[in-house]
Amino acid sequence: MDFDPTTHPHRRVNPLTGEHILVSPHRTKRPWLGQVEPPSSPNLPQYDPACYLCPGNSRSGGQKNEQYTGTFIFENDFAAVLPPPGPAAPPAPHPLLTAEPVQGGCDVICFHPRHDLTLARLALPDIEKVITEWVNVYKSRGRQEHVKYVQIFENKGAIMGCSNPHPHGQVWSLSAIPTIPAAELSNQRQYANSNTATSSAPTGPKGRPSLLCEYVHYELTVPESEGRIVVKNEHWVALVPWWATWPFEIMLLPHHRHVPSIAHLTPAEKASFADALSRVTKRYDNLFSCSFAYSMGIHQRPTPPPADQSEQEALEDEENIGHLHLHFAPPLLRSASVRKFLVGFELMAEAQRDLTPEQAAARLRACSEVHYLDAIGKEEGPGEM
Amino acid sequence: MDFDPTTHPHRRVNPLTGEHILVSPHRTKRPWLGQVEPPSSPNLPQYDPACYLCPGNSRSGGQKNEQYTGTFIFENDFAAVLPPPGPAAPPAPHPLLTAEPVQGGCDVICFHPRHDLTLARLALPDIEKVITEWVNVYKSRGRQEHVKYVQIFENKGAIMGCSNPHPHGQVWSLSAIPTIPAAELSNQRQYANSNTATSSAPTGPKGRPSLLCEYVHYELTVPESEGRIVVKNEHWVALVPWWATWPFEIMLLPHHRHVPSIAHLTPAEKASFADALSRVTKRYDNLFSCSFAYSMGIHQRPTPPPADQSEQEALEDEENIGHLHLHFAPPLLRSASVRKFLVGFELMAEAQRDLTPEQAAARLRACSEVHYLDAIGKEEGPGEM
Ligand SMILES: [Zn+2]
Ligand SMILES: [Zn+2]
Repeated sequence: MDFDPTTHPHRRVNPLTGEHILVSPHRTKRPWLGQVEPPSSPNLPQYDPACYLCPGNSRSGGQKNEQYTGTFIFENDFAAVLPPPGPAAPPAPHPLLTAEPVQGGCDVICFHPRHDLTLARLALPDIEKVITEWVNVYKSRGRQEHVKYVQIFENKGAIMGCSNPHPHGQVWSLSAIPTIPAAELSNQRQYANSNTATSSAPTGPKGRPSLLCEYVHYELTVPESEGRIVVKNEHWVALVPWWATWPFEIMLLPHHRHVPSIAHLTPAEKASFADALSRVTKRYDNLFSCSFAYSMGIHQRPTPPPADQSEQEALEDEENIGHLHLHFAPPLLRSASVRKFLVGFELMAEAQRDLTPEQAAARLRACSEVHYLDAIGKEEGPGEM
Repeated sequence: MDFDPTTHPHRRVNPLTGEHILVSPHRTKRPWLGQVEPPSSPNLPQYDPACYLCPGNSRSGGQKNEQYTGTFIFENDFAAVLPPPGPAAPPAPHPLLTAEPVQGGCDVICFHPRHDLTLARLALPDIEKVITEWVNVYKSRGRQEHVKYVQIFENKGAIMGCSNPHPHGQVWSLSAIPTIPAAELSNQRQYANSNTATSSAPTGPKGRPSLLCEYVHYELTVPESEGRIVVKNEHWVALVPWWATWPFEIMLLPHHRHVPSIAHLTPAEKASFADALSRVTKRYDNLFSCSFAYSMGIHQRPTPPPADQSEQEALEDEENIGHLHLHFAPPLLRSASVRKFLVGFELMAEAQRDLTPEQAAARLRACSEVHYLDAIGKEEGPGEM
């Protein structure tokens, strides 16, 4: 019997985290008993006087937002971490019960003054402004003395517990590297130091192999119809990774060279990044004709390089071993109202999926890149690749 | 400044998985803006003709359930894994894209014929029947030649994607040890082989330290008012672990000796297990006066010991290094309708909680052990510890 990944249950390995994922493709054939609701019509105002993120409005902490016209960043009124000084580390009551104090800061970034727009409907110059704001906060927070890691993320959609549709993201800057990026950096470092044969893929510092550059380089050789790539432009690729956990998970990353962080992007790479973000989020919205919920996170060098790092220094810098990438983790499975639950076996044993990453990529490739809300009166052909 | 775990943000380590958890206790003081609904009145019939788990009813695969009177086990009609033979392992298309075939079986266990009862409302002899069924399936599946791991779990509540309230659990038996139990077993083995000083806690095989026995032994020395223990009886302890991720997470485990699996339980330990399960689930339901949703999983020796293993052999058996324990992961946070979302920073960086484990344990200790639906007309004192 030959192994067929669209029929036979199997496990894949995520080389970034070292974790497995159980794939059960035969189950996509089972009958679906749940209800499927029509997508709710999104009838949001451009300005909502009750929204704490709209320009000029008051937040619950009492502060007033600026009358901003581009992006707008402010410190979270209920931050998960607090700035230094903090208390000293307490003695552990028992070797198995350790606690380390953590300091830092939490910021909120409004992407745009319009209450009713998301990344999927912003013009490219407006998305570039968001990227510029990300670069600025990565540098300003990341160069604070106590900060060891800057996590930029977006949590979108009521299904993700985010009740405010105003387009915004968050930035948590901490005095420690969190579990997931620490594991990914460690595995990327191990790969760089291994004797893994390198292809002609771009390499990281000291000419060492870059795990994600190797991976993307391989994906670009796979024929489109069998592959996992959803969107590709000059500098960026969006794909459903081989080891995806979420049904329509996407990883977005540069493919033409090893890029340690958003602070390293050239103007052309930034423009290309905005284009890729726009196309990915439009396809997401079009998949189930809804404002597609997801959590997105940027993984990169923990903090930015010194402002005066030369090109030569960068090539030798061990901290540059991680390759910049974004994860999109969306919970929807079959329609705007049918979600995947990460429960039971998945919480207790291992991530599990039915739809293969290749099937998910094909579904996303079939979506248009004209947003469904903007498609009225326009020709709605299949999206270009 | 002295470190105060109820005020200062900090990170704790989970020694079972090696992962961190970010604790932000100061945030419990922030105002709550979400809506709080009254608990829905549970008005379930004792028998539901539309339920595919009730005795005598048909399942979607066409099979008919027995007219069972105790527990009832059947093979899942849409199993995530399939029995052998499976195909051989395919050649990896690239070293970073690995896939291994996996075989096994998935079972469903109905806990009781009554559609409207849960573990929290079953009589102790009925809970013991469930435990006996778990032991039986652990042995029968675990001794199939291709099975390397038996994961017993329960997924309860619509909020967890489980739409059928009929009391039931699942068992997935696989030809590989899944990610989370594999990590926990590896860390327990490492602890056993380390030079960690042992207290007077029970030890594992070859007299080596048992991570969880050491941990529970310490917890039993902490004064109740500062501690994390919720329920304790002769053989079992339920506690909110130091490293808990979910707001009201509980770990349930034997405290008087090292127990590798449910197959090792004596009759007295089984009766004590039933008592502890009943008391934990009653407190859960009483916390927000609702049928409390959770995922529960049993972690233990991957497969049962040989049927004829002697006591002496058991003391030398390396496979016995893991200590039997149950995880309860409940999503509710503030009321029957306010859940915790594991999104954003948590999906992209690290688990995070506001309420400390000690505060959660105190809340659960304050709950009665008389189920709220059975409390009418009865005196409802504070539960005994
Ligand atoms: Zn990553
Ligand atoms: Zn465990």
